[in-house]
Amino acid sequence: MTDTDASPGPVGIVEVAALAGVSPATVSRALRGIPGVSTATRQLVQKAAADLGYVASPQASALARGRTSAIGVLAPWISRWFFTAVIEGAQDVVTARGYDLLLYPLGANAGPDAQPVDTRGLHKRVDGVLGLNVPVTMRPATLKTLAAPLVTVGSTIPGVPGVRVDDQLVGYLAARHLIDLGHRRIAFLGLDPDDMYGFTVARDRHTGYCRALAEAGLPTHPADVEITGFAVEAGEAALEHQLAIADWDPAALPTAIVAVSDEVAMGVLYAARHRGIRVPQDLSVVGVDNHDLSHLFDLTTVGQPVRQQGAIAAQMLLDLIDGRGVGGGEPVRLLEPGLVVRNTTAPPRAH
Amino acid sequence: MTDTDASPGPVGIVEVAALAGVSPATVSRALRGIPGVSTATRQLVQKAAADLGYVASPQASALARGRTSAIGVLAPWISRWFFTAVIEGAQDVVTARGYDLLLYPLGANAGPDAQPVDTRGLHKRVDGVLGLNVPVTMRPATLKTLAAPLVTVGSTIPGVPGVRVDDQLVGYLAARHLIDLGHRRIAFLGLDPDDMYGFTVARDRHTGYCRALAEAGLPTHPADVEITGFAVEAGEAALEHQLAIADWDPAALPTAIVAVSDEVAMGVLYAARHRGIRVPQDLSVVGVDNHDLSHLFDLTTVGQPVRQQGAIAAQMLLDLIDGRGVGGGEPVRLLEPGLVVRNTTAPPRAH
Repeated sequence: MTDTDASPGPVGIVEVAALAGVSPATVSRALRGIPGVSTATRQLVQKAAADLGYVASPQASALARGRTSAIGVLAPWISRWFFTAVIEGAQDVVTARGYDLLLYPLGANAGPDAQPVDTRGLHKRVDGVLGLNVPVTMRPATLKTLAAPLVTVGSTIPGVPGVRVDDQLVGYLAARHLIDLGHRRIAFLGLDPDDMYGFTVARDRHTGYCRALAEAGLPTHPADVEITGFAVEAGEAALEHQLAIADWDPAALPTAIVAVSDEVAMGVLYAARHRGIRVPQDLSVVGVDNHDLSHLFDLTTVGQPVRQQGAIAAQMLLDLIDGRGVGGGEPVRLLEPGLVVRNTTAPPRAH
Repeated sequence: MTDTDASPGPVGIVEVAALAGVSPATVSRALRGIPGVSTATRQLVQKAAADLGYVASPQASALARGRTSAIGVLAPWISRWFFTAVIEGAQDVVTARGYDLLLYPLGANAGPDAQPVDTRGLHKRVDGVLGLNVPVTMRPATLKTLAAPLVTVGSTIPGVPGVRVDDQLVGYLAARHLIDLGHRRIAFLGLDPDDMYGFTVARDRHTGYCRALAEAGLPTHPADVEITGFAVEAGEAALEHQLAIADWDPAALPTAIVAVSDEVAMGVLYAARHRGIRVPQDLSVVGVDNHDLSHLFDLTTVGQPVRQQGAIAAQMLLDLIDGRGVGGGEPVRLLEPGLVVRNTTAPPRAH
């Protein structure tokens, strides 16, 4: 056993070779499992390496194997719940296989012209990439030049394997639930601010919402659709804007709201409380995600299996890296969303 | 300019050398900025590299420089708000300096005997490590053998540079605020479950709470202190347990609660609402963190500058990597917490 209190000096392959009484080349072959080394010699080398506390350099190892044992994660943010939950789901899978996760958050630099990530060099640093709602805008310029396997979560790219929830169904289920409760005027708070990030998620959810309204013979009012993005603050601002349009008369508001994310819904609930608008008596609100904190708000939501998407995508990526492909059929795994009814939705108030 | 639609073949230093008409060694020196190469030759090599889309391998580069251009993050979880906010603060700093972040979440494997992270090999993969509330329990076995520079955020290690908030002051400020409002029986929900993670954070906050009570001449009741950890669910369970002790009579509860984190406070608020206990009329609640969502609960909290801690720690770590030390004096930067009064605290109910 190695004394863990020994100062961690620069033990190298040369020292291991000297202790084992073999050449450095033999040490390298023995530790990398390359044939042509006897079992006795291999054990001798392994014991010498253990005694000296020698750890193979991942860089040298990567050069030798052409592998980095690392997975890159491209994501707009990491402090948003969806992304951390996906990463958490992926982490379990990749860690169990001995891979590290490298984070490449694109942040506010993910505009159409930004090239914040050197994707040309990424394949030399990682064996594969998980793209989490990677903006459409950066695809042509960067993602197609990726030499490493890529699997997406959320927004997908034609021809690229991915995992996502059926976002049109998400929007449909949310609106349909409100229609079934008797609502006739339902707002959609959640188009993307300016396509800066180029997600398809919001657009797809809006499409599903429109389909549910059309099926029920309900008109869509442009004023009932707000551009919000996905953040709490935008939800607050959107309800304030709806109130302004309604000339500050809560009774003139839509009777129900589909929010594009639970975070937007949380912002709506906050603004409603501060404006004295009762939920669900005066206003019904449905979110999307089943965020870990959504039950604290008694929020009705269209849930998606987020950690599961991360885990499935990680498995697909590891299979690609190992040359096993993604299995037969459709390269995009579409998971089912599911309505979670809590206490922010109810039949509309009587006018 | 390079044609980005060209298939990314294995362009190497040899191809660049051939196109530039120089030796591979000269290419290496030119691209790594090593002296002894004329400006004209350097430009020739750079143009050849650009034309071929050659990107230096970080592994080869790391071997040559003894650098990996990566920072490791050791953290118990990444989906908890505190950790993601610290990472977000650190990411801006390290990205601006060309470093990647590697995540090593310890997760539920961070028990006393677990060695989930091969810290012996970590220094070959990263140039430095940020330890986010790294458990005391894993320190002797692993962290002291780290050959890479280490900077901690949250719980600190004697002799190791770090950044944290003054957690005793955190507990003191929370309890003091409630005492100033007139409360005489104040519960502390937030000791660590079983020292499994070995944080000092909860213990320090409890110490500050005890000091505030002692200063005010108030006794501490063992039954008013709950073991919770930091999660929402534990806050719910702790209030339920307090109710059970109180024989399900809300009037027999402490009149105020110091919760060790905003997430625990959120759980308390949820349980209180479902039990018909009015906040702040029947029960005052103070959290800790100023979590991004805490305002949605009108939560009074002792705020800490979390992203700032991540940024400061990252800067300290980069300075250490560059051999510049951490500046004079105390190796642990202690940041000030600050009370944020919202609407979950008020004078106690009249009995």
